[in-house]
Amino acid sequence: MQIINVVLFDNFETLDACGPIEIFGSLGNEYRIEYYSMHGGIVTSRQGLQTQTQGFTQMAPDEIVLIPGGMGTRPLVNDDEFLSQLAALARQAKNILTVCTGSALLAKTGLLNAKRATSNKLAFDWVTSLNPAVDWVAKARWVVDGNIYTSSGVSAGMDMALGYVNDHLGTTVARKTAHDIEYSWNEDPDNDPFARLS
Amino acid sequence: MQIINVVLFDNFETLDACGPIEIFGSLGNEYRIEYYSMHGGIVTSRQGLQTQTQGFTQMAPDEIVLIPGGMGTRPLVNDDEFLSQLAALARQAKNILTVCTGSALLAKTGLLNAKRATSNKLAFDWVTSLNPAVDWVAKARWVVDGNIYTSSGVSAGMDMALGYVNDHLGTTVARKTAHDIEYSWNEDPDNDPFARLS
Repeated sequence: MQIINVVLFDNFETLDACGPIEIFGSLGNEYRIEYYSMHGGIVTSRQGLQTQTQGFTQMAPDEIVLIPGGMGTRPLVNDDEFLSQLAALARQAKNILTVCTGSALLAKTGLLNAKRATSNKLAFDWVTSLNPAVDWVAKARWVVDGNIYTSSGVSAGMDMALGYVNDHLGTTVARKTAHDIEYSWNEDPDNDPFARLS
Repeated sequence: MQIINVVLFDNFETLDACGPIEIFGSLGNEYRIEYYSMHGGIVTSRQGLQTQTQGFTQMAPDEIVLIPGGMGTRPLVNDDEFLSQLAALARQAKNILTVCTGSALLAKTGLLNAKRATSNKLAFDWVTSLNPAVDWVAKARWVVDGNIYTSSGVSAGMDMALGYVNDHLGTTVARKTAHDIEYSWNEDPDNDPFARLS
């Protein structure tokens, strides 16, 4: 049993978190989901979902950290206390998964330096400007480099989560998980229908 | 501005609610999302998401009611108090949208009688057995009958929500909404990749 430690903050994008949560939560014998924010308590998504969280200090190491994106990342890329705590959580994680502009937060910790990573295509210029030491991939549904998975915008997080399941539990399990939730999984990380035509 | 009144209950399926919430919430000038449960307070999804809600008595009429499904529907189809209150909320709604086994709850109120409707394909036999007076459609991504939209399982709720946006705000808006969240919208309600081969 692995724990998916979801990192939430005000104005997170609902589906960035809830898409992967649906995938991992459907495999209840393999994964347990826990919800965290820096100070704990209620966190409100951009879509008004108010979610109860535990504080960062309660998070167990050696598990999986999931970082969503959304408009809430805009102030956080300049929040030294948040970034310092996020870096500590990410360093002690077994795997790190980011969705959308969640990779902006991870890039600001320095942990993506010299690694391949992707992000939301609408926000790509902003995200990549935050840290040019990252090897940003403009055309990818998701990217894996070492223990770090980064996905493109919002819905791409579901494809990445299924990709993670595929890599750790096999293709049969990943396909069955997608089928059970009636999701047409984009199985190829290099197939990015939303990449910029540049 | 229309309100999307999301009806939550313990063990609701996270993505059944959060998929459509993402779609409608991305159109912040058109829709506002509010979260309800019978008695209000914290409701916990099957994936452990703890969400703050208002009580049913606070819900405004003449808005849009969204009913997710999930394992939490199993006890509720036998909960006369819940069904009675849900029927009252649905009767006063402008539109009703159900995802997955959310249609089981609406079927039990009698409001789907003689109407076309669909549901989750894995749970189809159970749902249809609850009320044979409904004209159940076995092969559909989503179904519209009058002011009621019903969708197939989990992810189909996103296609249905985009279908609702298409019907009310036009195809350009629906396609842009899907594109902005990097979602490959299945635009055809009759294209059901998960229908049973029967």
